[in-house]
Amino acid sequence: MSSYNVNRTNSQNLYKRAKEVLTGGVSRNTIFRRPHPFYTATALGCYVTDIDGTERVDFANNMASLIHGHSHPAIVEAVIDQMRKGTAYTLGTKIEIEFGELLVKRNYNFEKIRFVNSGTEAVMSMIKAARAYTGRAKIAKAEGAYHGTYDFAEISQIASPDNWGDIDKPNSVPVAFGTPECVKKDVIVFPYNDTERTLKLLEENKEDLACVLIDPVSHRIGMFPVEENFLMAIYKWTRKNKVLLVFDEVVTYRVSYNGAQSKYPIRPDLTALGKIIGGGFPVGAIAGNNEIMSVFDPSRRILKQPHSGTFSANPITMVAGKTAMELFDSQAVKDINHITSMAKKQIREAIKEADVPVKITGAGSMFRLHFRHKAPTNYRETFQGKEERKLIVDFLDYMFLKENIMMINTFACMFSTTLTQREVDRLTDALFNGFKKYKPRIDSFAK
Amino acid sequence: MSSYNVNRTNSQNLYKRAKEVLTGGVSRNTIFRRPHPFYTATALGCYVTDIDGTERVDFANNMASLIHGHSHPAIVEAVIDQMRKGTAYTLGTKIEIEFGELLVKRNYNFEKIRFVNSGTEAVMSMIKAARAYTGRAKIAKAEGAYHGTYDFAEISQIASPDNWGDIDKPNSVPVAFGTPECVKKDVIVFPYNDTERTLKLLEENKEDLACVLIDPVSHRIGMFPVEENFLMAIYKWTRKNKVLLVFDEVVTYRVSYNGAQSKYPIRPDLTALGKIIGGGFPVGAIAGNNEIMSVFDPSRRILKQPHSGTFSANPITMVAGKTAMELFDSQAVKDINHITSMAKKQIREAIKEADVPVKITGAGSMFRLHFRHKAPTNYRETFQGKEERKLIVDFLDYMFLKENIMMINTFACMFSTTLTQREVDRLTDALFNGFKKYKPRIDSFAK
Repeated sequence: MSSYNVNRTNSQNLYKRAKEVLTGGVSRNTIFRRPHPFYTATALGCYVTDIDGTERVDFANNMASLIHGHSHPAIVEAVIDQMRKGTAYTLGTKIEIEFGELLVKRNYNFEKIRFVNSGTEAVMSMIKAARAYTGRAKIAKAEGAYHGTYDFAEISQIASPDNWGDIDKPNSVPVAFGTPECVKKDVIVFPYNDTERTLKLLEENKEDLACVLIDPVSHRIGMFPVEENFLMAIYKWTRKNKVLLVFDEVVTYRVSYNGAQSKYPIRPDLTALGKIIGGGFPVGAIAGNNEIMSVFDPSRRILKQPHSGTFSANPITMVAGKTAMELFDSQAVKDINHITSMAKKQIREAIKEADVPVKITGAGSMFRLHFRHKAPTNYRETFQGKEERKLIVDFLDYMFLKENIMMINTFACMFSTTLTQREVDRLTDALFNGFKKYKPRIDSFAK
Repeated sequence: MSSYNVNRTNSQNLYKRAKEVLTGGVSRNTIFRRPHPFYTATALGCYVTDIDGTERVDFANNMASLIHGHSHPAIVEAVIDQMRKGTAYTLGTKIEIEFGELLVKRNYNFEKIRFVNSGTEAVMSMIKAARAYTGRAKIAKAEGAYHGTYDFAEISQIASPDNWGDIDKPNSVPVAFGTPECVKKDVIVFPYNDTERTLKLLEENKEDLACVLIDPVSHRIGMFPVEENFLMAIYKWTRKNKVLLVFDEVVTYRVSYNGAQSKYPIRPDLTALGKIIGGGFPVGAIAGNNEIMSVFDPSRRILKQPHSGTFSANPITMVAGKTAMELFDSQAVKDINHITSMAKKQIREAIKEADVPVKITGAGSMFRLHFRHKAPTNYRETFQGKEERKLIVDFLDYMFLKENIMMINTFACMFSTTLTQREVDRLTDALFNGFKKYKPRIDSFAK
């Protein structure tokens, strides 16, 4: 148990109440921490103040979803204006069309778009669309990749040495107890960035595959960009075999003006979006090829995938998202990627000075630290054993409780446009202090 | 094509733009109508004004989700206050606990609660929880019942005479093309309110069943309350066979102070919530038995169902939902159910006066009209053939375009607390006019 001298009475007391009504005291596991979660009182820009009065710098941004940090005045104003006109109707709104236009214009691959309420819903609807279009049931996904909580998309997300099996044919490892056998059977798990093995697995299942699902900079796999050779090989294979290539850019859309996909000479058939495109409100979207997207089209004689959603494209999410994405123009993308890149440079210097085996992976405005002599290049290398998990928990506790810095629980940072050199310096100094403090433990097991 | 003299230029023009970026021009099929959807400019209370300046009375309330109509001042104020403190953090908030306390206090069966972003997510997580707890894969659901877009929950929602099969063993009919065979196999479809047949089907699958899923006043089945004898028989069977009984009250929670379930001497193990509990913002929740809910508990040594969600329990939804549910106190429930009941009485008189074969089903603040000599008692009786669908579309066009009244596309009304006798009179008069107008067609095929 940490013994940092931190005001926590209000959070402790609130957690006692929380445990009475919320399972484990939380409504999302993200906020869970031992011995208790902390609770936000107010947040502005890149600063979050908890209910005990401690202000922290936010490098987590609600799991990468707040590209402009908290309470951005333009978003607040736009939402308040919409609030007075209502938040949801059984009719359409102009704003959903305007926001659709913005996103379609932004990415050449987004011929049509449909909004939903979360990244989980986006990935689920996207997989269902791939099945509806191809008439095939199976999907292929990368070992370790997180794609939300739809059970098919979840397979092998937390595979571990105990159960992941032979790398030539990774096991389909369910996340939740009681996952139907048939879900495992219909998901082909491949090793990310391993062209030969992946193509072999795809080839073996080509008759039954609806789509290959790719997160181009998968956070959980290790947050390194997908290798171009690997991606090109898969892309060509899917074209040849009439299997869809679908991207999960829920997290990664932030890495460039038009998503991580724009860095590669390919056109994913469909893309799932979420996080930053909601401007801080619940959102998801499926975008892509006109013909494939038409499985959702209610004006068609045959509607292949009936789909609605009470709150999909609600005008609050639309106005917040549109405002956020207008502000996240090409200059803003350039600026945030530049400052993130400067931060990585500073942190690399701190790593060198502290003489610790730590490597940084990432893309655009996001990066992740690994206790490694060599940066991991696949999920099995990235996988954190028990000792490493414990060290990360301790390190992040130190960052949070002593240095007042919020990071993501994988030891990652997701920047917002409101961060400046001042906060980057604080982050670097804090990490440097942590590296020195934990050097013996980092040294002792870093691979 | 209707020829009502209605201002629609702006909506027509907007739809042209919509079709360029949204599949079929819509982001949710609910708002789709031929030749084009209409678009909201502003909405207050029970009145919605479209972008061509026409004001309509709202009896749809965004598919039952707005219990206080639009832009309720207390909700607007509470949300604006929260907006200035931020909309989402990687930490917890006090408001999610307070709202959890309110709902747990409100229903004896809700020992613990977990919030998500939509009814679809709530039902999916609930089914996964039932599997995680029991270790079994199959679910049983009623033919015709709508439970969101999770593919297992979707089975047989739009079953039709062409494919529904023998009533003794209804087929598992998928909604979306390409639904995996194994999804069909793992869903047992039973005929609602048919005790003998249902028990036989459950008995045949008892070794593999995780849960029986019930919507206690299923809108699509026909919006009549589940029969107590049927429900009691299922309840007892589930107790005997250690299968969970899980309720979908996403729509029906509104029918009484503590949900439709409170009318019956049973305790569902889990309940999915959504719609009105979000106060007009995206929401879902799973509530129920403490021990079963612990599958979500991240503090347990074994976490059976890892589950999070970027926007789950976000403070905007929580504050809007809490405000809405505080306002929807027992007096408000009594009042809305009373006025709905008066409306039904008036409409029955109009039916009699117009001498048309129309029956009303419903519960609490919701009801549905059927072109029938006798009210339907099961899905196959409720099922609308092509001619009937066409009549309903025409009738609802008349209501919308001529009488300026918004209803739900199944020919249903979902009331809000802002409706008064004045609007009920308008509804009754409009329906009466419609009954007279369409009497020959209603007479010609009503069963």
